[in-house]
Amino acid sequence: MAKQDLERHLKILRDDRIHGAGELARQGLHIAAACARRWPAANTTDLLSALYEQAGIIAATRPSMAPLQQLLQRWRERLSALADYDLDQARQGAAALAGELAKISESAAERAAEHASALIGGGKTIITHSLSSTVLAALQRLADNKTRIILSESRPLCEGYRLAERLSAWSIPATLITDAQLGLFAARADLALVGADSLLADGAVVNKAGTYLLALAARDCGMPFYVCCESFKRRSPAMPPIELETMAADELDAPGWPGINVENIYFDITPARLISGWIDETGLQVASKA
Amino acid sequence: MAKQDLERHLKILRDDRIHGAGELARQGLHIAAACARRWPAANTTDLLSALYEQAGIIAATRPSMAPLQQLLQRWRERLSALADYDLDQARQGAAALAGELAKISESAAERAAEHASALIGGGKTIITHSLSSTVLAALQRLADNKTRIILSESRPLCEGYRLAERLSAWSIPATLITDAQLGLFAARADLALVGADSLLADGAVVNKAGTYLLALAARDCGMPFYVCCESFKRRSPAMPPIELETMAADELDAPGWPGINVENIYFDITPARLISGWIDETGLQVASKA
Repeated sequence: MAKQDLERHLKILRDDRIHGAGELARQGLHIAAACARRWPAANTTDLLSALYEQAGIIAATRPSMAPLQQLLQRWRERLSALADYDLDQARQGAAALAGELAKISESAAERAAEHASALIGGGKTIITHSLSSTVLAALQRLADNKTRIILSESRPLCEGYRLAERLSAWSIPATLITDAQLGLFAARADLALVGADSLLADGAVVNKAGTYLLALAARDCGMPFYVCCESFKRRSPAMPPIELETMAADELDAPGWPGINVENIYFDITPARLISGWIDETGLQVASKA
Repeated sequence: MAKQDLERHLKILRDDRIHGAGELARQGLHIAAACARRWPAANTTDLLSALYEQAGIIAATRPSMAPLQQLLQRWRERLSALADYDLDQARQGAAALAGELAKISESAAERAAEHASALIGGGKTIITHSLSSTVLAALQRLADNKTRIILSESRPLCEGYRLAERLSAWSIPATLITDAQLGLFAARADLALVGADSLLADGAVVNKAGTYLLALAARDCGMPFYVCCESFKRRSPAMPPIELETMAADELDAPGWPGINVENIYFDITPARLISGWIDETGLQVASKA
């Protein structure tokens, strides 16, 4: 992989507004694997040094997304074990390691979804916000089970539409609402279930803006609020303070007015005190264990 | 005014998504005045009986909006005082009464706005949701006073845009956000100020969907949440339970999917326990007096 190829891949990763943090982390690992296979290097030491640096560059593309940082960091830490290999073996080893981490992450997300669907059971009305691939997998398991979904548009890019499309395909009856109606409809649901872009070390969840509002409404209605994601989304206490990504203001498609600033911060932070339970690949953790 | 003219006016009132409850109530009174002037009647008794009926019909066009009900009810109750007048005098008297009530309502809204601006004072960052003519009048009084505004789009019709336009014209610096960012930005404001479509007898506020979410965020941030509106917006305990108006789903402009229901309920109810104070034409009432 040449430098300009890497930059092209990084741009795609940076500009991706479609995929969630888990999927983007796995895409980051695929970029890392491509670098391992093809980055120009004279010997193993050169290669590992370049890959170590690139892992940091890939991780930095999406600062709000813990799994990208976690998985690239894990990959980076294991590169030193390849130091005694010849160049070709080191390339294969580093690429295989990235693929393995991607599989571990994917399977963790699947197991988290299994735990969520088992915990929720049939016949429930579930309210969610934004689109999480892990929540989606949990909902798919709950089809044909008298499950009903209430979902929000999730402005500005309306990823709720993609969720609606999938629910419709799986014949799961659902109600689509504006984000502003989340409070009104919280009272009609049995529980709230959301994914996460990152979990902070104290259990707070970083997820699409509006998640905090749904959690407040859930608490006010006396309804449980669950977060479902693989443990790779948990940031270690050693990581720097989270940066909430600000996206282009023109995504709101608002007219311009002099003196009026348009803000488009993608994520908000829902404090741990508003969360009833965290569901990951190991099962459910309730508040007292957080 | 012929029957078809009345129906045309009622349709305009029913379909109006631009004006707030106070302005619609005054439009309702103007319709009542037009009926008083021109509705075919053989004598005073016939006229008053027809006007009594029409007042009920006008009030029923917007069931979520208390001032329309309150003001038309007040008008209706006073019609009987005109029973001894001749037909022309009764017409003039009923029309004048409607005009007088509209002026009282308008002046009450203006005084409420004065109280709000005096209470808030200069140098504050105020977060608001939706567009209230009373809040707008309060904000205009706070221009040139180091006031900053955070305002939401207010989907689906984005009446926040109209507020942004006015703030821009008055050179009040402001930040426009998606409704989903209300929680994130609540922490950056000093206080929340909203209008009301209706106040329930217990002090709960019926306002554009999303108001309840802002109130929850305000409480969570320890920030005061004020409601500013004239007292005509308070429903009497004798009124039937409030009906939250549901508008056309296609206002969301979402693609259609089989099995996915799109809901567009315009209003939510913010319970009195989340409200720090009510500002009306008489001044501020705090929670304990509600």
